[in-house]
Amino acid sequence: MKYIDGGVCAAKGFKASGIHVGVKTRNKDKKDLALIVADCECTAAAVYTKNIVKAAPLHVTKQHLENGKARIVFANSGNANACAPQGEENAKRMCSAIAAELGMNQTDVLVASTGVIGQTLPIAVIEGGITELVSELSYNGSNDAAAAIMTTDLTMKEVAVEFTVNGKTVKLGGIAKGSGMIHPNMGTMLAFLTTDCAISSEMIHKALVEATNISFNRISVDGDTSTNDMLTLMANGLAGNDEITKPDKAYNEFTAALITLCIELAKMIAADGEGATHLITCKVSEAKNEEEAETLSKSVISSTLTKAAIFGTDANWGRILCAMGYSGVDFCPESVNIAFESKAGRIDVCKAGRGLPFDEANAKKILSEHDITIDISVNAGKAECTCWGCDITYDYIKINGDYRT
Amino acid sequence: MKYIDGGVCAAKGFKASGIHVGVKTRNKDKKDLALIVADCECTAAAVYTKNIVKAAPLHVTKQHLENGKARIVFANSGNANACAPQGEENAKRMCSAIAAELGMNQTDVLVASTGVIGQTLPIAVIEGGITELVSELSYNGSNDAAAAIMTTDLTMKEVAVEFTVNGKTVKLGGIAKGSGMIHPNMGTMLAFLTTDCAISSEMIHKALVEATNISFNRISVDGDTSTNDMLTLMANGLAGNDEITKPDKAYNEFTAALITLCIELAKMIAADGEGATHLITCKVSEAKNEEEAETLSKSVISSTLTKAAIFGTDANWGRILCAMGYSGVDFCPESVNIAFESKAGRIDVCKAGRGLPFDEANAKKILSEHDITIDISVNAGKAECTCWGCDITYDYIKINGDYRT
Repeated sequence: MKYIDGGVCAAKGFKASGIHVGVKTRNKDKKDLALIVADCECTAAAVYTKNIVKAAPLHVTKQHLENGKARIVFANSGNANACAPQGEENAKRMCSAIAAELGMNQTDVLVASTGVIGQTLPIAVIEGGITELVSELSYNGSNDAAAAIMTTDLTMKEVAVEFTVNGKTVKLGGIAKGSGMIHPNMGTMLAFLTTDCAISSEMIHKALVEATNISFNRISVDGDTSTNDMLTLMANGLAGNDEITKPDKAYNEFTAALITLCIELAKMIAADGEGATHLITCKVSEAKNEEEAETLSKSVISSTLTKAAIFGTDANWGRILCAMGYSGVDFCPESVNIAFESKAGRIDVCKAGRGLPFDEANAKKILSEHDITIDISVNAGKAECTCWGCDITYDYIKINGDYRT
Repeated sequence: MKYIDGGVCAAKGFKASGIHVGVKTRNKDKKDLALIVADCECTAAAVYTKNIVKAAPLHVTKQHLENGKARIVFANSGNANACAPQGEENAKRMCSAIAAELGMNQTDVLVASTGVIGQTLPIAVIEGGITELVSELSYNGSNDAAAAIMTTDLTMKEVAVEFTVNGKTVKLGGIAKGSGMIHPNMGTMLAFLTTDCAISSEMIHKALVEATNISFNRISVDGDTSTNDMLTLMANGLAGNDEITKPDKAYNEFTAALITLCIELAKMIAADGEGATHLITCKVSEAKNEEEAETLSKSVISSTLTKAAIFGTDANWGRILCAMGYSGVDFCPESVNIAFESKAGRIDVCKAGRGLPFDEANAKKILSEHDITIDISVNAGKAECTCWGCDITYDYIKINGDYRT
């Protein structure tokens, strides 16, 4: 497997575009409509937020995916179309307008929105931009589409990989947005993936759920699960491999690549957490089972106090042990070892649940790097899990204290 | 029932004191040892943090309370004695030293610590201050004791009430600390209550658990449950009422007062949340049952994004509905009404799950008050629950980004 350029257009037979039409009213330089179109019908799957308050486009996308097929992803930023008047009607109007312009079926459209909750979607503005959006479609359009789904994101998130499935070269790529897994008002996390792999609707869904559970579901920025989270994957089969129809070796080859891609995008989202200055990787090892390792790791990366300590480059391991303690997992505090690691080195701070003497200056040096790893062993078994998060900073407060008004 | 002065010494027969001995090394003006002593043996009860990482003094206090009796509360601030070498040994040394000085039994001591995790308790320093601490004991010492348990608290927390049990006048008072229900490194929430009511060990425990569940367990500052949380109640019986030995009318009179006192102290803690500029009261009504109302309310006051919005005086109700949505409670978003209220007025912002047009300037005025109420109806039944929290601010990040070093 190797990383390649091209993002969501890296796989054969996918065009994309992104333009500004005015859903984002504050800044006319910011794109707000994104489009991805496959040259032919695709098998497709999606996963959605678990928040019971779901934005209208999620309901519409779900309906359109009932047949396991899709061809178009159409998304806007600047307005979440959640808890808003005429939400479902407007999401459907987005689908019918883009399908008409492309001469395709409305049910082939996966629709997404991200932005402020509770305000009516400016559907006329969006419809007014559709001709231009379609005319801009290009096999090099990934960048534009990636830019058009950004809200408070500071970095564009695109990844693509090339690998083989039963000896055939297959490409898989995607774009994502989210400056936080997990925060409602930005419409949070969106990711759109495409591949030229031939894979059945059933298997593409299985692979996507599997990959999501150990990538996007293992990041946290602020613990707030959005109303708009959505991840889609379309596969057009142009790579020419025999269609994957069961969980065999080819399925495993595809899923391994999908997992790699999803983890890369997920880490980009965590690193670009609102106001974040550190990407925090928390690895819990020697746990009784993977579920407990995941619960412990998530509790650590979600702890506001731990996040504040990392912002302050403070090797305050007591907060980490404390966060493990209230996670709900039954473990022995007296068996826990904790170390901090970054490219500046590694420092052991807690052994068997008790603090070790350590060089504070060295700890500060290690924690001053952008990428920090918290390495925890619970000495209870052989399972492990890694989750990703970010620190909490003054800028997080600034961004979220004054996002809407 | 009426509020009276005197805090933890308001009830007949309780002395208290507080001094600086040097556990807090940074600031010599800050008291760090607190003592409460009853004139005679008390029935007593305590509740503890649910974090499985528990500080050593909690284990010792639990042992000493096995007989349901106590007479002394001895606490230090500046060091949590959690995850520290010789933790239990040092907690026991605190008990034996104070008991010896007072000529009482070691098992009558309830011991508590609050401060940094993972560092050895400076037990010699504490022992060196005991003679002075005892010599300072006074029936007017509540203030000194309240000051001596503060860490990042900005306000002292003392309340007392007078009420009748079967026609006899009874007093109940207490002190608390916690600039957050809920954050590990300050050793978090401590509260020590005293009463002259005559009540059996069994009933005092029952009343305390009942009161805690609807007061201290309904506040949140940052979602981090401390290793050191503890709440104790001692009753010396000097009010002369017939001892309460079953859940009768007298028990209800006592428990009603206890609930009032605990809610007052809990609200003081929420209002003094680290860096907080707003006390947030979230009332959820018309819920299916109290448990669901509580889960919804807690999810709202714990949402980092909601807290940031309140800091920004931003009537961003979408974040509130979103926090309800990921709470785990199954409710109908289309039945939810949300309003903001303060002494500057009331404004309805969401009806039947959809945004209402509202005057932004008026909303800002209402949210600029210190005490904000979020009033939510889910239109699903008759149960209700109120929880308390605070906003998250730049100062929260400042305090917690650099607490230890």
